[in-house]
Amino acid sequence: MRLKLLLAYLGAGYSGWQIQEKPSPPPTIQGELEAALRVLAGTPVRVHGSGRTDAGVHAHGQVAHCDVPDDKAKQSWRRSLNALLPPAIRVLAAEPAPPDFHARKDALRKTYAYQFWQERNFVPPQLAPFVWNCGPLDVQAMRAALPYLLGEQDFAGLQNAGTDMESTTRHISTAALDILPPCEFYPPHAPLLRLTVTANGFLKQMVRNMAGLLAACGQGKIHPESIPALLAARDRRAVPSVTAPAGGLALVRVEYPQ
Amino acid sequence: MRLKLLLAYLGAGYSGWQIQEKPSPPPTIQGELEAALRVLAGTPVRVHGSGRTDAGVHAHGQVAHCDVPDDKAKQSWRRSLNALLPPAIRVLAAEPAPPDFHARKDALRKTYAYQFWQERNFVPPQLAPFVWNCGPLDVQAMRAALPYLLGEQDFAGLQNAGTDMESTTRHISTAALDILPPCEFYPPHAPLLRLTVTANGFLKQMVRNMAGLLAACGQGKIHPESIPALLAARDRRAVPSVTAPAGGLALVRVEYPQ
Repeated sequence: MRLKLLLAYLGAGYSGWQIQEKPSPPPTIQGELEAALRVLAGTPVRVHGSGRTDAGVHAHGQVAHCDVPDDKAKQSWRRSLNALLPPAIRVLAAEPAPPDFHARKDALRKTYAYQFWQERNFVPPQLAPFVWNCGPLDVQAMRAALPYLLGEQDFAGLQNAGTDMESTTRHISTAALDILPPCEFYPPHAPLLRLTVTANGFLKQMVRNMAGLLAACGQGKIHPESIPALLAARDRRAVPSVTAPAGGLALVRVEYPQ
Repeated sequence: MRLKLLLAYLGAGYSGWQIQEKPSPPPTIQGELEAALRVLAGTPVRVHGSGRTDAGVHAHGQVAHCDVPDDKAKQSWRRSLNALLPPAIRVLAAEPAPPDFHARKDALRKTYAYQFWQERNFVPPQLAPFVWNCGPLDVQAMRAALPYLLGEQDFAGLQNAGTDMESTTRHISTAALDILPPCEFYPPHAPLLRLTVTANGFLKQMVRNMAGLLAACGQGKIHPESIPALLAARDRRAVPSVTAPAGGLALVRVEYPQ
């Protein structure tokens, strides 16, 4: 029986989604899931995610699929998996799926969120694992940059080395920068900012490179109007901004047909 | 020069506020602060908190005082301390205080918050360190219990063993149970509940015992009307409810004259 899993996890402490097949492998999300599924299924189970998340990246709604033996199917997989998994990895839903459902190939759109903290000298400790502490930002300049990133474009300039993709063209359907309400309990501070971006797919570290580019706009280092020329070079080295740190990023949602 | 420190910290990973003077002491909040202050002051510095928090209890607004050498006074203590402290402990403010300011003796009121999560099988991983996962609760029954805890009363029945206090009478000025908005990103779930309680002082594990008592009311195990009789026994063993776990608790605020 094919299972569709909806997953939340904290990226800190894990070497990303993808299992590493080597002696003494570091902990990974996929590795933890496969270890728990093996116990419940009584046999090795391969888990296929909608995509890899980098080391340190969080997820609120990662999707994966796997096949479990039919004679083990009649159990609450959500409950059983949550009982075995570490608290940092939670199964929000585990439901039977059509036998041809594929978490990666069937995905229509993904949504990521990236959080920027503006006060260098103090991050509320509860928030620290989930933000980039990048100092004061000009929200208007960042918002002025967003339209240049929308639509179907070649995003090779926002792709880090390490993966050869057939095409580096992706379609970003929405990108918004929200000002979040102040953290309760804490003294007044510059607001937390959240970039939310939806596309039909993302290149390697593309959202983190977008976040770095937007922060550079917000710091006055890059003019929003120069973004088209920077992207036209199709070369990451031509874009003078950093790859934003992993902890600020979360995979929010993966959408499928229907 | 006397310094007044406003502090936030994550309790997980620390053996509470109070430093333990023994070989190979476990990490404590006070211990981390004193280690950082010793570096900056060039001499041992004793830190006095408004009170101890237990192992695993968090703080948004703990207050402490200490004395630093006058010739070292002209630095940004907030910035310097945050540079040395682990990310789980943050200095929100560090200001000169009158030489007779005392964080514990001068405190007028303290406010604590305790968070209850109602869905046994799933806690969002970001929230897990900050809630008690205690299952479904009847909010009306819990709210019906609150008035019985207000005012000046002998709370010996909500004090755990281990500390001899001269008096076990305290004055609870406010106690409220709030229904928090749903966690964004996650599927619909029973709401997170937060108890907020203010008093002129608290006995050992008094808030966690209050939280356990309220949860027992919310689970139908204790009738709110029976609380006066339970407290009248002045004996923790007469109160048939658990001490709620430390992780759900946070010290929110300490108030001083003016």
